[in-house]
Amino acid sequence: MKSRAAVLYGEGQEFKLEEIEVDDPKENEVLIHLAATGLCHSDYHMVTGEYGPLHFPMIGGHEGAGVVEKVGPGVTKVKPGDHALLTFIPSCGHCRFCSMGLGFLCDRGANIILGPQLDGTFRMHTEGGDDAGQFCLISTFSEWTVVPEASIVPIGEDLPMDKVCIVGCCVPTGFGSAVNKADVQPGETVVVYGIGGVGINAIQGAAVKGAARVIAVDPVDFKLEMAEELGATHTVNPNQEDAAEKAIELTNGVGADKAIITIDNVLPEHIGQAFKAIRKGGRVVVTGIANYKHQHIDVSPFELTLFAKEVVGSMYGDSPVYADLARYLELYRAGILKVDELTTKTYSHDQINEGYKDMLDGKNIRGVIVYDWAR
Amino acid sequence: MKSRAAVLYGEGQEFKLEEIEVDDPKENEVLIHLAATGLCHSDYHMVTGEYGPLHFPMIGGHEGAGVVEKVGPGVTKVKPGDHALLTFIPSCGHCRFCSMGLGFLCDRGANIILGPQLDGTFRMHTEGGDDAGQFCLISTFSEWTVVPEASIVPIGEDLPMDKVCIVGCCVPTGFGSAVNKADVQPGETVVVYGIGGVGINAIQGAAVKGAARVIAVDPVDFKLEMAEELGATHTVNPNQEDAAEKAIELTNGVGADKAIITIDNVLPEHIGQAFKAIRKGGRVVVTGIANYKHQHIDVSPFELTLFAKEVVGSMYGDSPVYADLARYLELYRAGILKVDELTTKTYSHDQINEGYKDMLDGKNIRGVIVYDWAR
Repeated sequence: MKSRAAVLYGEGQEFKLEEIEVDDPKENEVLIHLAATGLCHSDYHMVTGEYGPLHFPMIGGHEGAGVVEKVGPGVTKVKPGDHALLTFIPSCGHCRFCSMGLGFLCDRGANIILGPQLDGTFRMHTEGGDDAGQFCLISTFSEWTVVPEASIVPIGEDLPMDKVCIVGCCVPTGFGSAVNKADVQPGETVVVYGIGGVGINAIQGAAVKGAARVIAVDPVDFKLEMAEELGATHTVNPNQEDAAEKAIELTNGVGADKAIITIDNVLPEHIGQAFKAIRKGGRVVVTGIANYKHQHIDVSPFELTLFAKEVVGSMYGDSPVYADLARYLELYRAGILKVDELTTKTYSHDQINEGYKDMLDGKNIRGVIVYDWAR
Repeated sequence: MKSRAAVLYGEGQEFKLEEIEVDDPKENEVLIHLAATGLCHSDYHMVTGEYGPLHFPMIGGHEGAGVVEKVGPGVTKVKPGDHALLTFIPSCGHCRFCSMGLGFLCDRGANIILGPQLDGTFRMHTEGGDDAGQFCLISTFSEWTVVPEASIVPIGEDLPMDKVCIVGCCVPTGFGSAVNKADVQPGETVVVYGIGGVGINAIQGAAVKGAARVIAVDPVDFKLEMAEELGATHTVNPNQEDAAEKAIELTNGVGADKAIITIDNVLPEHIGQAFKAIRKGGRVVVTGIANYKHQHIDVSPFELTLFAKEVVGSMYGDSPVYADLARYLELYRAGILKVDELTTKTYSHDQINEGYKDMLDGKNIRGVIVYDWAR
């Protein structure tokens, strides 16, 4: 079938809106009619080449919600008409990692940035007839998409898809970084570096778990204001103040219990700064994606051992996909986890490049494309 | 009183045996007559300057057992005649970290390599009359020593002090790295880098917790043989084989669950090698001490996040001092944790420099000085 989609033809280019061809779902695949999709920096890493060499053309988008249109053979999780979130990492349920409760490390997710579907073939084809890769297997920048059953999380029809679409990526990635990987405890002090779609949810996660001090760090004032509205107790503009010094000062010289880095393009020195901010036995959670070329982080191995500090990566907020997305949606329904407020601006499909420009200019916590039929 | 002690007068020098003056114990301090002390690489870091600038003269030794001779005012934990281990980090029981069960990060331990006692004054004085620092507050290279009550762990008189003296440092540091910080689970694959006094205990810890594969990595053949005797299932001589490749091959491409680095002088690239050996969601525990000048570790921040890997430091095997030393001694009594076997050679006090030479030459798992009166 035909679908309008935002195609990336190579590094350094804009997304090109064009009419592509989408194949029928094969075995254990599902055709989805997307309602909305978030504009996340992780797509933009393809533009800047930070993931390394990729298959182009690629159809971006990895954070969306929509309606099941058609299911392929063997699909049992959903039926046509069901509402669903798409998850940027599949969770097959059968591999070693899924069985350990680590669905965010599912073996089916090993090659999700390479383009083809799980069977190695392509479901999307450009107007020129070339096979187009599907970013994270789901390509939510296409109005219609075919995805693995493992990439689908059914949701209630009471949930507004134009709002909860971002629960497919930035909400669990940020919230889970705080509640799962940082394992914030009541009364702790937490520093969150970078207040975008991910960081704002780390702020919320720290607050929900009862942190006494939540220090938001970002150079953009309106983001710091938003952080304060959603749980930050202190804010630091790194152009004016040193966050590590602030954390140490606020804790009478002890240091923060946890630091969470949600910056969009993590540099080795960011990790070094967070490492300085934490106390003995404290933990730095690295959630933002770094350029694949960096081969070190600025952490003193002497202090790592002497102070038994921890530096840990977090993928998808270490959220077991089905269980945690359901929990987070319950928190949203309960009014505890704010999601509606995170969409700073909505865009039409045609405005996608404008949306990314706004993101780069620091104008949005999250920009969201709402497809015409769902507006 | 007079005591014979091994004094270090500066970087690059040998320990000089001389008769020093030891003061009476002050408030909350205890005079100990040492029976035996282990020769650990951590003392040798003073010789090489890897801790940075220190107070000299310094009297080394931080792993010992002895008999309480006299107690200062306020001491309740022990009385004259009691047998005790000395712990290289004090555990005051009252600070934030002790109260969290993190006695190995006790605030009283903040300055233990600087030399003076907790009140800032010195108890030891060289034959020339200069104040001598006490390494880790306990200076077990002196036949008599004054230590804080917080540095004492009373032990049963059934335990042979010339053997269990090493339970003051290398046993908990290695064993705890595996059982506490690496939290090895039954059936897991664990790589241990460096089979000295610490590494051999990490091997034992991994085995006791039921690891299916314990891969010992060391360039010295007799150490690998010892590792096999005490629980290693595989050995790697890094001059002949790549440990990461071996771990990945043995796990059908998955990688080790945990890697523990107990090398005596950890380099940034050692951590990079261990990082490559572990699976998604796996953990590298850094137990060995690095030179304070290193300001980075060779870890890809991209892979840290994408694979949710963990790099964590471990101090004293993250062993809550009193509780864990007691547990480890019970395991020794039960014949499960081997301690006697770890002393490769004993030395007289006068042979201390020979003992360190043997350590550097890779001849010992552990060398131990047994004081004449206790031989």
